Amino acid sequence: MNSKDYIKLIIDTKLAFFSKIKGFYILRPYGYKIWENIKNILNKMLIKNKHKNVYFPLLIPKSLFNIFNNHINNFTKECAIVTHSRLLIKNNNIYVDPKSKLNEELIIRPTSETIIWDTYSKLIQSYKNLPILINQWSNVVRLEMKNKMFIRNSEFLWQEGHSGHINKKEAIKEIKLIKKIYKKLIKNYLSIPFIFGKKTKLEKFSGSKFTYSFETLTKNGKSIQLATIHFLAKNFSKFFNVSFTDKKNKKKYVWSTSWGLSMRLIGAIIMIHSDKKGLILPPKISPIHIIIIPIINNNNKYIKKINNIVKKIKIIFYKSKINIKYDNNLNIKPGNKFYKYEKMGIPLRITIGKREIKNNKIEIIRRDNFKKYYLDIKNIFIFKKKILKLLKKIQKNIYNKAKKYIKKKTFKVNNYYLFKKIMSKKGGFIMTYFDNNNDTELKIKNETKATIRCIIKQENGKCIYSGKKTNKKVIFGKSY
Amino acid sequence: MNSKDYIKLIIDTKLAFFSKIKGFYILRPYGYKIWENIKNILNKMLIKNKHKNVYFPLLIPKSLFNIFNNHINNFTKECAIVTHSRLLIKNNNIYVDPKSKLNEELIIRPTSETIIWDTYSKLIQSYKNLPILINQWSNVVRLEMKNKMFIRNSEFLWQEGHSGHINKKEAIKEIKLIKKIYKKLIKNYLSIPFIFGKKTKLEKFSGSKFTYSFETLTKNGKSIQLATIHFLAKNFSKFFNVSFTDKKNKKKYVWSTSWGLSMRLIGAIIMIHSDKKGLILPPKISPIHIIIIPIINNNNKYIKKINNIVKKIKIIFYKSKINIKYDNNLNIKPGNKFYKYEKMGIPLRITIGKREIKNNKIEIIRRDNFKKYYLDIKNIFIFKKKILKLLKKIQKNIYNKAKKYIKKKTFKVNNYYLFKKIMSKKGGFIMTYFDNNNDTELKIKNETKATIRCIIKQENGKCIYSGKKTNKKVIFGKSY
Repeated sequence: MNSKDYIKLIIDTKLAFFSKIKGFYILRPYGYKIWENIKNILNKMLIKNKHKNVYFPLLIPKSLFNIFNNHINNFTKECAIVTHSRLLIKNNNIYVDPKSKLNEELIIRPTSETIIWDTYSKLIQSYKNLPILINQWSNVVRLEMKNKMFIRNSEFLWQEGHSGHINKKEAIKEIKLIKKIYKKLIKNYLSIPFIFGKKTKLEKFSGSKFTYSFETLTKNGKSIQLATIHFLAKNFSKFFNVSFTDKKNKKKYVWSTSWGLSMRLIGAIIMIHSDKKGLILPPKISPIHIIIIPIINNNNKYIKKINNIVKKIKIIFYKSKINIKYDNNLNIKPGNKFYKYEKMGIPLRITIGKREIKNNKIEIIRRDNFKKYYLDIKNIFIFKKKILKLLKKIQKNIYNKAKKYIKKKTFKVNNYYLFKKIMSKKGGFIMTYFDNNNDTELKIKNETKATIRCIIKQENGKCIYSGKKTNKKVIFGKSY
Repeated sequence: MNSKDYIKLIIDTKLAFFSKIKGFYILRPYGYKIWENIKNILNKMLIKNKHKNVYFPLLIPKSLFNIFNNHINNFTKECAIVTHSRLLIKNNNIYVDPKSKLNEELIIRPTSETIIWDTYSKLIQSYKNLPILINQWSNVVRLEMKNKMFIRNSEFLWQEGHSGHINKKEAIKEIKLIKKIYKKLIKNYLSIPFIFGKKTKLEKFSGSKFTYSFETLTKNGKSIQLATIHFLAKNFSKFFNVSFTDKKNKKKYVWSTSWGLSMRLIGAIIMIHSDKKGLILPPKISPIHIIIIPIINNNNKYIKKINNIVKKIKIIFYKSKINIKYDNNLNIKPGNKFYKYEKMGIPLRITIGKREIKNNKIEIIRRDNFKKYYLDIKNIFIFKKKILKLLKKIQKNIYNKAKKYIKKKTFKVNNYYLFKKIMSKKGGFIMTYFDNNNDTELKIKNETKATIRCIIKQENGKCIYSGKKTNKKVIFGKSY
């Protein structure tokens, strides 16, 4: 899918729309509902694992960023900076009142580590106050130069989790837990296959000791970062003076982690699962699971019977998680409806017409592969079971398809000439070895635009660029 | 409750905390959970009534405010204005890069009518695109001069609903629906009694044709606005050119409404229901419903039996809406726990000790009036039923208490001397008549600091200030 088709699909299916400002988009009901579904799934898992939601302020005073320069370094070129507080209306025109200049500039959060750990420096005294296991659902602003709907928004909705622990062991345990939770969300709910590994020094989150990331590949061979988990060690607690007294009454610094994922996931879903006809939504996050379309060719004789069957189907799924939409607008031709809901990616389509009523069987079509099924609606338990099974199959099938694609597009290469050729033509993931040297990484990036998505394994080999012996097996890719 | 006690209670019960910037507060898990509970209740009602959630950008270009000056007029003095986009680090200090000045300043939304109707001007063409029934859960910024936690935050979380209709009748129907939904939330879930009526011309939302508001009274005689509903008529659609062709192919302007409520409701709950011992949370929005405290005086003989009873109670309420917390930290004395959870406002407290085990009866104490009950736990169905009944009783009792208080503090006055005396001493609501003249309203405000909370009725009488005949029966009060 090229960029133009991608945007057109988003606009056509009413997922999002443009605003007047570059990089700021409007999430329409259909798009927002997908985000809500993702949010609810993840939120449930986090709460179950003892995390609590909080809300920290949108605006962070500049001075808080000054405390840990190394952290803010990566964000300096994309900050939205609030400098004034009043508007003036003169001759029907609005101006910024120069007299309203703030004493200190405020930055719209690009991420919240600074304000969170500054706050906890006042709230944590003893080991009894730990662990801190918090999460925040919020908006952040990063005024990126290049924008792409859902993938690189200047403002995006996300979740940022933060934890504080008494020692390294506990912090690492938290990282493992979050890895497990993210994996479950991405694989089981979004049907997205991924690779997982550590970021290189150059690519890690500024201020972290190391960063883990989930990476995947879209249909045009570009890689996309799905979620990250940062081990912050004692970096933030030392800069922000977050300390506690342990059981032996000794003063210690807090170990911390942070982790996040955003509505970029929606972009990944679109780019990974779509086909020529439009979106294919993973059933578990699809706002609508079944679209029912009556086929009656202006013949009203059967409409009552069709309505009764629809009622029955709705009752079967009453109070379940399955959402059913019945499009009974007779002014629109069935064919146009097929076109519309295929584009919207609704997993199952049921059509009911004369034939279906006579045979007491309902035609069901899967969106992912257009396979047809005829289900008897007399036995509602079997009917329900079969529908649920079909949804599961779709969920699995689109995962397998994507997995196969990624496998096909992952090239094991140990020759730099071939590396360059693949990156410039096919794209995809390149699995190879890297000498763990910043210079090597920068040179490859300059020459090929490819970056190391993550270090996937400790394995002996020779660096693709320098030929030096190394034990870093990595994945390269071109990112959005 | 004076201002100092109010803040102390919020800090002590860990509802919220201060940030480095005036007026910006941190919502801690306990406070955020109350907001989540309110949000979920309202969200469910809105979705059930065909409203859909959306998300519009945080930042609004200044030029959009220029289109409808009359609307932005009320917000000009409290805008957070983004003017720059880059920071510079020099000699370990962070500066705003003067070269990063934006071409157009961006305003952090104080409310979203402008950007919403500017967007819909491009999305609405025909009557088939209407009604628009949308809602947004988001943060807004209004840099108020005077701040008060939850009541007047510079940034607050809220819900803003927006609707667009083909004609006035439909818009008025929407207003009635939202009135019903807000009423249900405020009365049945928050146990807050209120008065409802129209705002005066001076107090209405700038840009609206008229505004309805829900108003209540706190324990120190001050009034507080709980929610507002605005009838925007064709004001916004005309300025932003939001038009549609009707069934007869005639071009018409969209009729619109907007309505909102915020986490200020948490402030109202605190100020209305608290007593000397602390918070009293309405059960329906309380994060915890029952706190269980073991009484064992360092005698471990009974701990296993107590744990078994607790397990049983937890099973009784498994997967119900009732949240139970068991505080079995034996290092803290029961008395200290009583103090803590009373302050936190947990509706019911269960204590289990030696006596309870022997008698097979459990002591339950209501937070609202400290009445004691002894419930047999052998019959779990009766036990569950009785607990649910007690929670209902608390919900109702705190409503009735507040209602009685407001009744006592509402004075029917038709003498301006008495009006001034009451307002300067007792505070409260004053029910009287008003000549519907802006000057009268401003004079009263200057002389007494009281404002008209709303017009509650059409009823003939004489204006408290001018003595002129009028049919506007109003409520005066001093607001936060």
